[in-house]
This record gives sequence, C-alpha cells and structure tokens, in this order.
Amino acid sequence: MRLDDFAHLDFDRAQRTGVPEVVLAEGKADADLVAIVDAFVAGPGRVVVSRLAPERLRLLENLDAKLDYHERANLLEVSAPHAPPVPRTGGRVLVMAAGTADAAVAEEARLMAEAVGCDTRRVYDVGVAGLHRLQDAHDAWSWADVIIVAAGREGALAPVVSGLVDRPVIGLPVSVGYGHAGQGEAALSTMLQSCSPMAVVNIDAGVVAGMCAAQIANRVAQARHSPGESTPPQELVMRREQP
Amino acid sequence: MRLDDFAHLDFDRAQRTGVPEVVLAEGKADADLVAIVDAFVAGPGRVVVSRLAPERLRLLENLDAKLDYHERANLLEVSAPHAPPVPRTGGRVLVMAAGTADAAVAEEARLMAEAVGCDTRRVYDVGVAGLHRLQDAHDAWSWADVIIVAAGREGALAPVVSGLVDRPVIGLPVSVGYGHAGQGEAALSTMLQSCSPMAVVNIDAGVVAGMCAAQIANRVAQARHSPGESTPPQELVMRREQP
Amino acid sequence: MRLDDFAHLDFDRAQRTGVPEVVLAEGKADADLVAIVDAFVAGPGRVVVSRLAPERLRLLENLDAKLDYHERANLLEVSAPHAPPVPRTGGRVLVMAAGTADAAVAEEARLMAEAVGCDTRRVYDVGVAGLHRLQDAHDAWSWADVIIVAAGREGALAPVVSGLVDRPVIGLPVSVGYGHAGQGEAALSTMLQSCSPMAVVNIDAGVVAGMCAAQIANRVAQARHSPGESTPPQELVMRREQP
Amino acid sequence: MRLDDFAHLDFDRAQRTGVPEVVLAEGKADADLVAIVDAFVAGPGRVVVSRLAPERLRLLENLDAKLDYHERANLLEVSAPHAPPVPRTGGRVLVMAAGTADAAVAEEARLMAEAVGCDTRRVYDVGVAGLHRLQDAHDAWSWADVIIVAAGREGALAPVVSGLVDRPVIGLPVSVGYGHAGQGEAALSTMLQSCSPMAVVNIDAGVVAGMCAAQIANRVAQARHSPGESTPPQELVMRREQP
Amino acid sequence: MRLDDFAHLDFDRAQRTGVPEVVLAEGKADADLVAIVDAFVAGPGRVVVSRLAPERLRLLENLDAKLDYHERANLLEVSAPHAPPVPRTGGRVLVMAAGTADAAVAEEARLMAEAVGCDTRRVYDVGVAGLHRLQDAHDAWSWADVIIVAAGREGALAPVVSGLVDRPVIGLPVSVGYGHAGQGEAALSTMLQSCSPMAVVNIDAGVVAGMCAAQIANRVAQARHSPGESTPPQELVMRREQP
Amino acid sequence: MRLDDFAHLDFDRAQRTGVPEVVLAEGKADADLVAIVDAFVAGPGRVVVSRLAPERLRLLENLDAKLDYHERANLLEVSAPHAPPVPRTGGRVLVMAAGTADAAVAEEARLMAEAVGCDTRRVYDVGVAGLHRLQDAHDAWSWADVIIVAAGREGALAPVVSGLVDRPVIGLPVSVGYGHAGQGEAALSTMLQSCSPMAVVNIDAGVVAGMCAAQIANRVAQARHSPGESTPPQELVMRREQP
Amino acid sequence: MRLDDFAHLDFDRAQRTGVPEVVLAEGKADADLVAIVDAFVAGPGRVVVSRLAPERLRLLENLDAKLDYHERANLLEVSAPHAPPVPRTGGRVLVMAAGTADAAVAEEARLMAEAVGCDTRRVYDVGVAGLHRLQDAHDAWSWADVIIVAAGREGALAPVVSGLVDRPVIGLPVSVGYGHAGQGEAALSTMLQSCSPMAVVNIDAGVVAGMCAAQIANRVAQARHSPGESTPPQELVMRREQP
Amino acid sequence: MRLDDFAHLDFDRAQRTGVPEVVLAEGKADADLVAIVDAFVAGPGRVVVSRLAPERLRLLENLDAKLDYHERANLLEVSAPHAPPVPRTGGRVLVMAAGTADAAVAEEARLMAEAVGCDTRRVYDVGVAGLHRLQDAHDAWSWADVIIVAAGREGALAPVVSGLVDRPVIGLPVSVGYGHAGQGEAALSTMLQSCSPMAVVNIDAGVVAGMCAAQIANRVAQARHSPGESTPPQELVMRREQP
Repeated sequence: MRLDDFAHLDFDRAQRTGVPEVVLAEGKADADLVAIVDAFVAGPGRVVVSRLAPERLRLLENLDAKLDYHERANLLEVSAPHAPPVPRTGGRVLVMAAGTADAAVAEEARLMAEAVGCDTRRVYDVGVAGLHRLQDAHDAWSWADVIIVAAGREGALAPVVSGLVDRPVIGLPVSVGYGHAGQGEAALSTMLQSCSPMAVVNIDAGVVAGMCAAQIANRVAQARHSPGESTPPQELVMRREQP
Repeated sequence: MRLDDFAHLDFDRAQRTGVPEVVLAEGKADADLVAIVDAFVAGPGRVVVSRLAPERLRLLENLDAKLDYHERANLLEVSAPHAPPVPRTGGRVLVMAAGTADAAVAEEARLMAEAVGCDTRRVYDVGVAGLHRLQDAHDAWSWADVIIVAAGREGALAPVVSGLVDRPVIGLPVSVGYGHAGQGEAALSTMLQSCSPMAVVNIDAGVVAGMCAAQIANRVAQARHSPGESTPPQELVMRREQP
Repeated sequence: MRLDDFAHLDFDRAQRTGVPEVVLAEGKADADLVAIVDAFVAGPGRVVVSRLAPERLRLLENLDAKLDYHERANLLEVSAPHAPPVPRTGGRVLVMAAGTADAAVAEEARLMAEAVGCDTRRVYDVGVAGLHRLQDAHDAWSWADVIIVAAGREGALAPVVSGLVDRPVIGLPVSVGYGHAGQGEAALSTMLQSCSPMAVVNIDAGVVAGMCAAQIANRVAQARHSPGESTPPQELVMRREQP
Repeated sequence: MRLDDFAHLDFDRAQRTGVPEVVLAEGKADADLVAIVDAFVAGPGRVVVSRLAPERLRLLENLDAKLDYHERANLLEVSAPHAPPVPRTGGRVLVMAAGTADAAVAEEARLMAEAVGCDTRRVYDVGVAGLHRLQDAHDAWSWADVIIVAAGREGALAPVVSGLVDRPVIGLPVSVGYGHAGQGEAALSTMLQSCSPMAVVNIDAGVVAGMCAAQIANRVAQARHSPGESTPPQELVMRREQP
Repeated sequence: MRLDDFAHLDFDRAQRTGVPEVVLAEGKADADLVAIVDAFVAGPGRVVVSRLAPERLRLLENLDAKLDYHERANLLEVSAPHAPPVPRTGGRVLVMAAGTADAAVAEEARLMAEAVGCDTRRVYDVGVAGLHRLQDAHDAWSWADVIIVAAGREGALAPVVSGLVDRPVIGLPVSVGYGHAGQGEAALSTMLQSCSPMAVVNIDAGVVAGMCAAQIANRVAQARHSPGESTPPQELVMRREQP
Repeated sequence: MRLDDFAHLDFDRAQRTGVPEVVLAEGKADADLVAIVDAFVAGPGRVVVSRLAPERLRLLENLDAKLDYHERANLLEVSAPHAPPVPRTGGRVLVMAAGTADAAVAEEARLMAEAVGCDTRRVYDVGVAGLHRLQDAHDAWSWADVIIVAAGREGALAPVVSGLVDRPVIGLPVSVGYGHAGQGEAALSTMLQSCSPMAVVNIDAGVVAGMCAAQIANRVAQARHSPGESTPPQELVMRREQP
Repeated sequence: MRLDDFAHLDFDRAQRTGVPEVVLAEGKADADLVAIVDAFVAGPGRVVVSRLAPERLRLLENLDAKLDYHERANLLEVSAPHAPPVPRTGGRVLVMAAGTADAAVAEEARLMAEAVGCDTRRVYDVGVAGLHRLQDAHDAWSWADVIIVAAGREGALAPVVSGLVDRPVIGLPVSVGYGHAGQGEAALSTMLQSCSPMAVVNIDAGVVAGMCAAQIANRVAQARHSPGESTPPQELVMRREQP
Repeated sequence: MRLDDFAHLDFDRAQRTGVPEVVLAEGKADADLVAIVDAFVAGPGRVVVSRLAPERLRLLENLDAKLDYHERANLLEVSAPHAPPVPRTGGRVLVMAAGTADAAVAEEARLMAEAVGCDTRRVYDVGVAGLHRLQDAHDAWSWADVIIVAAGREGALAPVVSGLVDRPVIGLPVSVGYGHAGQGEAALSTMLQSCSPMAVVNIDAGVVAGMCAAQIANRVAQARHSPGESTPPQELVMRREQP
C-alpha cells in the first residue's frame, strides 16, 4: 500500500486550528510512521511525533530533518532544514505534577506547549500528601495564563489548585495507580467531579493538554500584544447542491 | 410467616464484637421491621434502626420503648425501659465532612459512634475548594483517637487530611455528585487510590464508619484507662465430628 | 442543627478564584437551602442557585433579595438590594448545542458565563446529522474567545467544531441518550477521545463549563483591556509550626 | 485429540448463509489451525483465515493449496487447486476509514467483502479533525450499495457520513485510543448513540462488517441483475418426535 | 425562548438520507414538543414522533394534522392535510421478536419501516427457549430483503436466526432482563459477539433498526424495479476560503 | 518461609465435600507449587493441579508420584504410589462445547469430572451458527445426569440446549471473543440472563463446572445404586464458650 | 393486537424440560398478562406467575381458575379446575437465606421448587456475621439433595456453606446492598469467585434457582424410586431440506 | 533532568504522620529510583521501597546503606549507616491471609507494620473453604490491637473474621481470581458490602494496610504506655494574605 492508499495528510491544520500536526507513533507500523513523517517534512516542514519509544528513534535518523527528542516524554520534534523556527507567542503555560511518576506525562504536555510557541514553567512532585510543598507554586501561579495539573492515583492536586487560583485550570489525569479505578480512572473521576471549576483531558493525554493550554495562552498573549485585533478563523463553506 | 420463619436474631453481637445490632429499615416491610425491633426490645433491650424515613417513625411508636430519632441522619435509637444507659467509653471520634450535602451521612457515622459510647466532635463543610477552612480542624485533630472524613463529589478532603495528621483516618464516600463516576464512585476511588494512608468504607456507609471508628477509639480508650489489661474475644469452637 | 453546624460558607471565593459561589439546590433539604442562600445574601450579597426546580422557587421568595430565575436552565441568580450589578468583563463566550434536548444544559453554561460578567452568544441545534447547519456558526466563531459545545447522544459535534476553529473549545456532554453508554457517557467518551484538541467537563456540568469558559474569556479580555498588567492571585501561606 | 474430537466443521455455511467459513487464527494452537484449514481445503476447497500473524503463515505453506495473504489485514485466503474462482456478484461495498491507524481493520473488512465476490472501493484517513477531506468521498458514495465506516478514537466519522448519505451505513469501531473508553469503546458508543441511522458491529470486527456489507450488497446486486427472482433460503425443519 | 432559539430544524433530511425526521418525545418539554411538531407540519408536512406516552397525545390534538398513533409502540405519525401518502417502495422488512415483552420495541421498528414505505411482516415470541417455534418463520425468511431480530434477556434468537439465513440481519437488543447485564446489555453483548454475521443497533433503538432496515430494503427494491439506474446522493460541498 | 508459614493444607476436603483438592498452578511460585503438591502426595496421596503450563511440568517430575498430564486442558493428576485408584461412581456427565476454541476449557471440566469418578462424554464444536449439528447430541442427552455447556463469544449454545432438555444444565462461559464484552463476559451474561433455566460458573472455571457436575451426577448415581440410603455430611460443631 | 400477534405460547415446555411455564408479570401490560394467563389455563391448565405485585392480583380474579398467591415472594400459582394436583416427586430442596432481607427471593425459589413437585425446607437469616447460627442447618444439610443459598450484600454465606457440605450448591445473589457493587453485584461476584464449588444464577433469579434445583432433585428422586430406568428427553429433529 | 526538576521530597513525613516515606519502585525509571532512594539515605536516613522486583535490587547495591530485602513481598528497607534502629512501639498487628496466593500481599502489609515499629503475627491460608482452620487464629485474635485480613477470589474470610472479633478489622483485597470480577474486584466488593463492620484498602495495597494498622496499633500502644498523655499533631497554618 502506498501512502496515498491509507493516509490523507492534513497539511494546513496548523494554520486552521493554531496547533501543529502530531503523529502518534504508538501502534503505527515502522514503514507507515516513516512515510508519514517524511511527507510532513517535505510538505509543511514540521511535525511532532508523540509516544515514540527511544529504540524507534533510529527509524527516522535518515530523514533530511532536524530531530529534537525528549526522552522522558517520548516526544520528538521534527523540522525540515528549510523550516523557520517556531515563533514565540508569549503565552504562559504552567505545568504542575503531583508525583514523580507523573512527570513523564506532564513533560509531554509542557513540551507540546513549547512546540506551539508558548513559554512554560514547571512545578513537579507537589502532591497533596505533603501540602506545604504547594507554597513553591505561588510565584508561578501569578505568572501563568493557564495551569495544567497532571496527577495520577487519586488526582486530588487538581481540585486543590483550582480552589486556590483564578487562572483557567486543565486537569490531566495520569495512568498511575493500581487496583480499583487504577490506571488513571480515579484521577479522571476526581477531576470531572471537582467542586472547583476545571476542564479535563483524557488519561495520559499530555499532547491534548498542551495543545488546549496553548490555544488559551496564545489567545491571551495575542490580546496582550495586539489588543485591538482579532483574526477570524478560516472560512468553511458547506453547501449542498442538487445533482 | 412468623418472625422465626425469616429471622434468626443475633442477640449477643454487642457482647461478641463490641458494636450493637443495627437494623437497616430501608427495604424491609413494615410488619417485619416492627417484629424485629420488638424482639430486640424484649431481648437485649437496645437496637439502632438506620435509614428510617421520618414518615415510618410512627410504625414504632406503640412499642414499649424509648425512641431517640435523629432526623438529618434518619437514625433511630431504641431502648427498652429496663435498658441501662450506654456506658461512655472515653473513645474520641472526630467526624469531618467536605460539603453541606455530606452532613447527613457524616451525622449517621457520628451518631453511631455515640451509640457505642464514644465521645464525638464534628467539623463540617471544609472541602478543598476553600482549603483555608481546614485550619478550624486543628484542635479537633489533636483531640481525636480516630478521624472519619465524609466526602462526596471528588472526595479530595480525605487524602488532604490524611496527609496532615498522624491519627488513623477512615474515608467515608458520600453519594453526592452526578454524571461520570457520580453517586459517590469518584469519592470512593479517590480514597482507595489515596497517596496518604487511609482505610475506606462503602459509599454512604455511615453506620459502618461509625462502628469501625468506635472499635478503634474504644480500644485506645481501654488502653488509656486500663493499660495493663486486655480482654480476649469470646471463644469460638468449630469442631467436626464423625456422624 | 444550626447553619454553623453543617455549613462553613466561603464568602470570598469570588475574589479568590474569579467565579461566584454556586449553591446546588438538588439534594439539599428546603430549610438548609434557605439558610445558605440567606447567609450569602446577608454576606457578600450575591449567589447563584443551580438545578432549582421551578416549584422550589417559592421557598426563596420571602428573602429580601432580587431573584432572577431562568426556567429552561433551572438557574437562579440572587442578589441583595445593596449588591452592585455584576461588572461586565468583555470576555466573549460562544455556546453551541447539538440538539434541542441539549439546550437546557447549554443555557445553564451560558447563563453562568453571563453571571460572571461575560458576553455570550448561542448557536443551538446544529448537530452533525445535518452538518450544513454549522455554516451559521461561522460569524460567532470569529467573535468568540472560547467556545462551549454541548452535546448528548454521540457528542460528535464537539470534535467536528474543534477541528474547524483555532479557539479553545470546552466539551460539555449532556445526559441525553438511552441504552448502552446512554445518559451522556457516550458523549463524554467522544470528547475525551477526540482527535481534535478540546478539554471536557462532566456530564451535565453546565455550571462548570460556564465558569471555566469565563475564566478563559475574562483573562483574554483583561489582556485586551490592560495588556501591560497581570494581577497575581491572593497569597496562600501554609506553614507548619512545632507545637 | 483428533480433529473429530474437538471440531465439527460446517462445510455448507457458504451455501446456507451466502458467506464463506472464516477461521479465526488468533488463540488456536498451531496443530489445530493446520488441521482445520486442511479439512476445508479437502472439503469445500476454500476458507478464509483471519488474524493470522505473518510469522504463522509458514504453518500452512505445506498444504496443497493456493495462499493469498494480505499482510496489513493479517487475512489469508486459502483455495484448493480444484476450487473455481469466487464468482463476482456485482455488489458494491465502499470502505471508509477515519485515521491511518484504522486502515488495518478497514482492510480486513474490505478484503472480506472481496472474498465474498463484491467489488470494493476505499477512502481512508478522512477523519472529522479535517472535515474537508470528506469531499473526496462523494463519488464513491454515489457508487456504493453499502458503506462501511471504520473509526477508532471518538469514531465521529460514522455519524457524520451517515447524516450525509442515503445508503445503508455499517459502523466499524476500531480499538485505537487510550485512557477512558479507549480500545474502541468510545467509538462503539458513538456509533450506537448516533443520531443518524446506522448499524454497528463489534470493535475490530472487520470480518463481520465485511460479511454484513456483502450480504446487503449482494442482495442489491441480485435484484439489479435478476429483478424478478428471489431464491428462498434453504429449508430448516425442526420437528419433535415422541420417543 | 422562541423555537428559533433552541431548534434549527432540518426539513430536507428525508430527501437527503431517505429517512424521515423523527422527533423523540421523551425528555422534551411539552411546549417544545408542540412547537417542533407544528413546524414540521407547516413545513415538509410529515414527521414521526417516537416514545410518546399515551397521556401526552392530547398535547398534539389541536394541530391541523392527521395523527396516527400506535399505542404498543408509543409511536405517532403526523401528517399535514396537504401531505401526500408515503409512497410504497416495495422493500420487504421482516421483524422477529423473541418474547412477548420484546413486542413493543419490535413494533416500533416495524412501524418505522412502514413509515418509510416498506412492506413489513412480523413473527413474534419465537425465542430459543422453544426453538421449534422458529419453523413458522421460514416462509417469511424467503420473502424478506432484510430481517430485524428484537430480543431482550440473553438475546440468543439473533445469532440463531443469522446462522440459518442468507439475508442481512439487524440485531435489536431490548431492555428486558434484570440483575447482572440486565436492561438489554446482555442482549447487546450477544449480538456484538455473535459468531454468525449481523449488525446491531443500540438497546431499544427500534426507530434506528427500522430506518436501517428500510435503507437496505429500499435499495434492494429500487434495484428490483429500476435495475439500470442509481441515483447519486445530494452533493455536499465543503470548501475553505480565506477571510 | 517454610510451607507452614504460608500454607495450611486441608487434607480432608475430599471426604468432607466429595471433591478432591485442586491446586491452581497459575500465579504460584515454583517452590511453593512443588512444596504444596509434595505435601498432598505425602498426605492424602492425591491432588489435581490446574492451569499448569506444559513447561512447568518438569518441576514436579522428581516427586515420587504418578503424573497424568492432559496438555489441551493444562491439567495434571498427581497420585502417590500408595494411592488407590479413584473409585468410579457411575455418575454421568456430558460436556458440550460451542466452538473449537472452547475445547480446552471444556476438557478441563470433563477431566475434573473424571477425576472425581464420573463417566463422561463429549460433543464439541456444535455452536448455534450451524444449529443442525446439535442433532448429534441427542443420544448423549438421554444418557447424561447433568450437562455442561462450554461456550465463548455470545454463548448462545447454552440457552438453546437448556430449552431442549430436562436434565440440569451448567453453563461454562469461555474467555473467547474480542471487543465489547469480550473475554467471556458476553457468554457469562447470556447464561445468567437465559430464559431457559441453567446455573452458571465463572468464565473459564472448568474446574468448578466439573466439580459441580460431579456433585450432581454422583448424588444421582448414589441414589441409583443405593436408593434407600443417604449419608449425612460430616458434623460441624460451632460453639462459643466464655473465656 | 390479538394474542396471536405478539405471543406464541409454548404449551409443552413442562413435558419437554420438566419445569412448568412461568410468566414474568413485571413489565407486561395488564391486558397482555391476562390474555397469556388465560390461554395457559385453557390449555395445559397450569401456569406460574412471578413478580406479581399484590395490587395486580385482582386482574386475574375473574379467570375460571384457582389462584394460590404467596405475598412475600410475589408468586402466583394458577391452576384450572380440571388440572390435577402437581405430582410430588420426592426431590428434596433446601433453601438457605443470609439475612431477613433475602427472604423474599429465597421464598420465590422455594415456592418454585414446590410448584415442580419437590419437598422443601428453609433455614433463613443465618448470615456469616453470626456464624454460630449455621449449626441449625446441619440436619437440613443431611436431608437435602441440593441446597440453594440466597444472599445479598457480600454474599459470603454461599462459599461458607459450600465448603462444609458434599451436596450440590446453587448460589442465588439478592439485590440487597448499596454503594459500590450494590444491588447484588457483590454477592454475584462472590459466588462466581468462590473457592468452594458452586453454580450460580442471576441476581434475584429465584425462579431460575428453584427450577434448577428441582431439575437436580427430581433426577435424584427418580433414581431413588426407579433406579433402573432413565427416560430419554423428547426427540428434536432438525433437518435441512432443499427447496 | 535533575532530581530537583521532577522530585520534591517530603523528608519529614515520618514525623508528621507517624509513617515513613515509601517509594513505589514499579513504574519508576532506574535512574529516578536510585536518585530518590539516595536522597532519602542522605537525608532522613531511612526509606522503604515497595514492589521492587528482585532483579532490580542490584541497582541499589552501590548505595552506602544497609539493604533489607524481603523477596516474597518484594519489599526493601533501606537505612543509612548512621540511622538508629526503628523504635519498637509495642503496637500489635495480626495479619491473616485466606489462601497461599494471598501471602505475598499479606507479607507486604506485615513487613510495613514491622517497619513502623509494631509487633506482628501471621495466620495464613485459613480461607472459608475450610472453615475449621480458623480455630488456630483464636489466640492471635486475643493478642492483637488490629487485624488485617488479606484475601483474593471471593474475599469471604474478611466478613467471617469481622463477625467473630471485637478488634478493628482492615480488609485487604488481593488481585487473585480470574473471569468476572477477577483481579481482586470481587474481594473488594465483598469487603465493602460486608455485614460485619470493617474498613478496606485498595486491591493489593499491602503497604497502605500496614500503615493504617500501624497507626491504629501505635495509638493503642501509646495509650497503654503513657495513658495520660496525647501528643498533638504538628501545627499547620494556612493563611491567605492580600497581595
């Protein structure tokens, strides 16, 4: 099967939605992964590859592209030689993580926000089992446009933070935990039932959390820099015609 | 059907396990409920009726017994005229509740602990959405032998408290909350996955939480009052014999 | 039980987190509901009551307060005579709904955003079964700072919209639908698994969606109006001291 | 154990139900798989083996049969030397897939329909995150008698397509997706709750989708070619007799 | 709220997808229901109302329209005085039901197929607990273009029928059954896991089953009557334009 | 740890309940498995080891015991040299299996019944997708005292058989099947919801099904051989004594 | 709709499977219920109606039949004037129940076994919370051919009994219990996972438990009375013929 | 990433909550695990590592610390050369286990209690399938301050023990068991639904059970040794300040 038989690449997603194309490496055959990444390099010149196990990195080493691999997050940024650097937007994304085991998913979110041009900070391992550690987050809260809270197990850090700040909070449940409601289900439930307001992404969806946070932060940053102006989204026309 | 056909009452549970017999009114037919309570009044002289809707209280008003009804908790203490007062044990049970909607179940737990002879205190509506309210619990923490934390929705108060104290904590999830993992399932998951140590009872199981806490507190109190002495449980003999 | 026994009201939540106190009427006893609302009227002067069935409105009619009731959303805004009007922030929240049955929850979200001072628009009944109806949303997309998409059944409107716009999208699943994964679970799953980025709130959590959207829109609006300035959140100090 | 001890092969299923026998390789011991396939080759002369990992192909290479293996779909068509080619029915099956990761299951469905004699087309990687790609499907819609829509993650392509066409649609959820409702459960829910009419098969059930589509398309094709005639199904007689 | 505020009616669905608009009465407020039905009567002139409890029928009696109510199925057909009769397509839909309790949902499916112009037959109460009753279905199988099998409890009738016929089979699980996997979940699972090929709709989704069957049967009937001709679906154009 | 520290073997279970001790090999450490089996060989002289992977057989080859290993069922019968043969009871157990993939679990059940002294027969691969194959089971039905029906996927064979016979039927769901309700959950649901009467064991619980069937068949056989006599179970005395 | 349109009554089930026809009243419309019962009275002369609420009894009072109603179990035995009494088989069924709340379902099982001609005994309210009460069951164990154990909540009585006896045990979970795994799911799980052998019926399936137990006990009784003879089941012939 | 980037160690948890820091090895990268343990050795001097597979033990062998590894429980106690021995508290924890497969988790609990300074005893393999084995636990019950009951499969040992003793009981479900509600879910349900009072920890949460039991036993022991004195928990001050 050729690339055209199974793939129909969407080269202008970045322009349409403000977030770049991300290719999920997990579950893709080696040949498919290479063909898809190659097409993005040749086309728009930039793509992010998520959940790329370190041992699969060599698959992509022959591409004529710059590879920026983040091992803890298993995230790869690929850019063609001709690709200009990602413009910095000035959006500010703070990523918090409850435990050391949550750091990988938290980093995936943070790096994704960086890849979209945001500035980021991190405050990790401040779970509610030792609540006093939260104090260290205070400066970062003042700085941020939006806060991602990554947490596994019971996920209680997210509602605690959300009850203390006036910034938008995005809950990011992590598949840490065992037994009943393990694998992140307890953390997801906690965030969906939170008495303090927050919006939530799926378990381990660091990429999604990073994109959502970037969309928020970038819109704030745009207002900060060009308060009078608002660019409309591209026009979509859907029209039925008689045959 | 006569009482003997469907019931086989266990009159010495209080003596065997240190907690009184509790009759769950919910789901029992009126006639059965009256017959069972009547038998306990005539027998050991004391019984607790849980989940008794206020409108069913009149069913029991003709019994020759003292009725002590707590409306918020739907709990009734029944004692025969001849029954001596419950001896106070000196055990100290603190009951905390996260929201106003958790107060009914929290009261069920607290009253149950009272019915077993413990002293109790309460600190209610101190959920993590307004964490500073926890300060008011500090004195009570110093006093308590054991702490029950009742919480619905995301149940995050329980791990927060457990991370701050060195007392045994019993998590009591409450069937408050809607949508995914509503009806207390999120709170139960939170408590089971908590990073701080705690033991948990079933959703809305105020009676069980109260009994467990009382067993703990009473054992502490007994040590406090008679440090040298430990009464063994009754002897159970199970022996197989050939026919 | 007096109010102090079961409630511990948090009068400065609005100041701390930028969203007003919301009292969930569902599941509260009549007397408790009145006491709590009364305390807010006497205190900060303003409170929102959610999920208030129309027939319970009369409970609150004797309070010395202005009652603004929205029947489709079962939402009540209560303000004391002395309370100043909610200041308009200039934040722009668009609420979309997939079907007519989703309108009640969508309205809950929209009115909540209004109660926090945002401007709102609505585009309802534009589900994917008739995709051409989406065209009418185009202008509203250009205007919005954030978009809430309320949808029950299969919830597919949310990923479709998210794939077409560059604004932050909040998915709001609605408990419409029957059989397997009914009651909003399918819509929640759809939004959590969406290939286009979006953050999600719990099923029927219109209040939460409205608050989150308002936090985003208000932060954008603040940047639009005072680009140079960022107010820090209130300071929380948590310090352990030796006894 | 001999073949007769554990298998009771149904050699005339093709004649009875219009679809050939399919042997699921997954979970069968090597020896059993070979014995069963061998019996079909010796008997009716034709069998389809599904979910056959490439490395197990060698197990069957010594059979006196033609092996037609499709690696992406892990599907093998086996035909005896004496077996006549599958007659082409003229039924028209279109297979659509939402993402590149859905192509394997989509191909399983398409190849199954081919194995039953249908003509097939494919339109892959047209998920709702880039809705404009749907335009390319328009010609294929006009051509098809029935449309299979394979989709993982949130599965939203299926209701979108179903709302646009007047052909029967079969939803085929794919076990792609992680976290809550992952592994195809979200896609299955989406399709079952779809507001546009469609029927659904189980997650990853490409073989079943292909068979169902072929039964529909072949019945249409038969009407197209021999409009006056309808062959009845074989007669089943079930009669109880006294001993 | 006026109709335009919450509804965006899709008057040409019948033309686009070959199935009429169906309004789900369950869960709609009285005023909304009347306004929506009224709009369809005034517009295209015909609408089907499903899950309409008998006592709500009077709400619609003042409309200037013909009401055709089927009590067992709680289904109402509404047609304006000017509406021409539904053209008969000649499609043949057989509806089978396993138990007497499944008849209501089966009838909903059958009447829906009738409302789309198909001819229908029924064979009810032929569950596998008395398998010999299946014999009576044999003539109907020969006649049908497609077979709907409605079954609650364990739903085993569906795979049994599917193993005996060469017609397309649509499984329709019914919310009959109690305890574990009750309310139709067992029947849904049975149909999704069936070893004989079949496609499935959601639990109690009689309307969907009827529509899907009608789409299949009508396409067969069209081929039967005009074998040379295939009408393409309406054209949908989706084009992005730069602002 | 010595055997006494973690095990407390129950050497007279066979005498008490009529079924021998079965040791589940799966999940036990090698050393523990050997120590436990050794103790039974030295004690009562006979034990059954279930779920013993073929490659672990060598662990037990040095024991002074006769090993009877059944590879398809992964079941091992161990008997000491001094152990008399299992007395044949004359109980008659028929085991049916729906598909070839169900044979392993069916054999586990059948061999277990043999190990308890019953006579057994088997009729395999007679699933409802080809119902006529059931005819071959008729003689066996007449012979049996009890019938075990093993089935995975949708499990429909069990209710079909139960509707045709007057013998006790035990449903044995098998963990075959994929996607929604896969791994035997659909089969379990089918059997629990069956309209024809049957009792059920857990998924893949071949050992339990064999034991239950043997208890039934042996009681029938005992009545057949010694109709006048009924041996009482051993006496259990449970008596509480005061300390 | 006439009876023939929705019902296809199976008048010889009693003869075929040894258990009488049972009509589940719950969920049936009044008119349907009366018509079905009437047909059985006119036909075979005997039918059991289960889950008949007391207030619906009057519906059937005009039938020319003897009505035997058991209120606790909501079970009605209907017999025509001409119907001979149910022959006593001599089978012995013991029914045990863990709590007073389990008695209704236990009685449903016991009365069903009586309706099939078995002798029955009962030992109720002997749950594991007071294990010494089990002593009273000892005589009954010696007598029984089969034991039904009905239990809600955690259902632990069933494995305890099964570990003490050598009779077949049927677990009957009862929908008593609240919170997580309430409504009988915990009891069902307990019985399916039991380390002592037992077979299980669905939650609240007293009728099924009674039928299964009767099939076992009657087969034992038959062997006891006519040890040399075994009646074969009726013959089912399924034969395919070419059209 | 340096340790400070992803970890924020809580060195005084032991002082604050009375239980030591436990590092869950499972799921941590090798380098992270070593860095964290190293920091605790250098800091407070003592840490417990749970779920450490034997083959990972070598990772920590180069640390300047004493390693005490318990293979069955996969638990490692690490102490710096300078660390004083854990003071014995005199608290008494009894650990019971139902089957041999439950011993690993039971040991994890028991060793954890030892690590906190308690005295422990064990009574293992006394499941309800052979109830008479419980007799051996009687002395231990008299001795204990608190009893942990570890059980997999159906978990029935826990409610049986709880009904016999007057000590606090902590249920510890074990992930033993297969099929429906396997992997410990049945045991968890049993313990949550138990009619006798007990509190519960998550499946396989031996560490949590050990900590909770130690908190209880140590509080009893403290009262036993210093009945007049109660040390308050450390003071937590949380104060909001205006910016």
